[in-house]
Amino acid sequence: MEVAYQGVPGAFAEEAAERLAPDLPRAPKEKLDDVFAAIARGDYGVLPIENSLAGSVATVAARLAREDARIVAETSLRISHALVAKPGTELAKIRRVYSHPIALAQCERFFDAHPEITAVAAYNTAGAIADVIARGAPDEAAIGSLRAAARHGGVVLANELEDDRENYTRFLLLAREPRPKTGPRKASLVFGLPHRSGALVSALSVFSARGLSLTKIESHPLRGKPFEYSFHADVAFDDDALLDQALAELAPLTLGLRVLGRY
Amino acid sequence: MEVAYQGVPGAFAEEAAERLAPDLPRAPKEKLDDVFAAIARGDYGVLPIENSLAGSVATVAARLAREDARIVAETSLRISHALVAKPGTELAKIRRVYSHPIALAQCERFFDAHPEITAVAAYNTAGAIADVIARGAPDEAAIGSLRAAARHGGVVLANELEDDRENYTRFLLLAREPRPKTGPRKASLVFGLPHRSGALVSALSVFSARGLSLTKIESHPLRGKPFEYSFHADVAFDDDALLDQALAELAPLTLGLRVLGRY
Repeated sequence: MEVAYQGVPGAFAEEAAERLAPDLPRAPKEKLDDVFAAIARGDYGVLPIENSLAGSVATVAARLAREDARIVAETSLRISHALVAKPGTELAKIRRVYSHPIALAQCERFFDAHPEITAVAAYNTAGAIADVIARGAPDEAAIGSLRAAARHGGVVLANELEDDRENYTRFLLLAREPRPKTGPRKASLVFGLPHRSGALVSALSVFSARGLSLTKIESHPLRGKPFEYSFHADVAFDDDALLDQALAELAPLTLGLRVLGRY
Repeated sequence: MEVAYQGVPGAFAEEAAERLAPDLPRAPKEKLDDVFAAIARGDYGVLPIENSLAGSVATVAARLAREDARIVAETSLRISHALVAKPGTELAKIRRVYSHPIALAQCERFFDAHPEITAVAAYNTAGAIADVIARGAPDEAAIGSLRAAARHGGVVLANELEDDRENYTRFLLLAREPRPKTGPRKASLVFGLPHRSGALVSALSVFSARGLSLTKIESHPLRGKPFEYSFHADVAFDDDALLDQALAELAPLTLGLRVLGRY
């Protein structure tokens, strides 16, 4: 058994995997497909589902809606960006800084304050750190996590470069089979509704009538089906029987309902 | 008067700007801040708000919620990715392909079919095309639009590389002042709600009670305020008086309501 995540060692996803499944070996994967293949074989997978600044990870949400994977746990990681370089590098000499475009865009103030530095896109943050350290050029650095810096032997030239400290990513632990739990939990649902006034209010009333509240809702237009929408919703609950009742009432109102997990 | 967009000439945003404001000169801007500064000066701005595969552009949504900009029109562009290189380049010789990481990730099948080619991250698609053509290396190409290929004098080595053809981005035209319209339109709203069972159902009932339907809804947790959520919703309407009634009933149920535009 192992826990697969998308990215390279030192990635934020690896940190999430360590928190969510501390006893399992962690397996870095290049592609989303590789993570779902691992889950289908009976391993665990860790994937990001939303970032407080960059929004939902729609590719992951879309795959979850159709894959045979269950959400069994979640965690939120604070995302903080450090400027990392090879030991011996001086900040004053840096001219090029590599990172993922979303990370670069989250550090605009740093680049405004350092007009002598050019931002250069990279495939991911931890990989940018590994590459910069491997090349060893005295005028290069990368933006990524303290974890990736430590993992690849980099020194931290500056910390908390992000413009907005309220930067969190929520990661899900996925498995082929649900993992029974009790007590206060969340259920993640995907359901389709006809595009008709009142359809959403009727659907959500099955929860509010029972005192259950949503912690997330998102509509996704279904292309090619202009009169149908799919909804991704998270519901807080603690009594399985009460949630079962609500779902039994919801199902006939929808064009299809899937429970992605209770966790 | 001009229309500002984020990106370089040949970008999808430029194409959207041409559709939304065909008579105005188009001004490429490096940063989101530059686009909002142009709007504040009385120019127009064009920004992406959501992609059918990659999801909401949360940075833009968050700025819209607090900036003094109004949505005055929208358009959806189909996003199709072409493989572009300097004239005279042969597909068989290509070893490195540059593009934005989201575009690269949307063309996984192409890279699976070409294991000899390495995907390399770039800051944006149109810029990747411009750079590859400027460098002129015989083993390099970039992924981007036909428009960017034409703009920068590139040849198209392969077309429609995207794994999923249902790839659309919705762009908004923004201005400092609303632009009065009549007939069937959409209103974009942002409102806060307490985290209480039934709060969302009550809020949405003001629309369903009048036969108005939502074309989008998204919850955004407010960090630091664990018991409040902000919602972004689009409502289809054609009678201003009926929408005004619904909004008058909605406002006291919320922790704050803003209308981002009627368009």
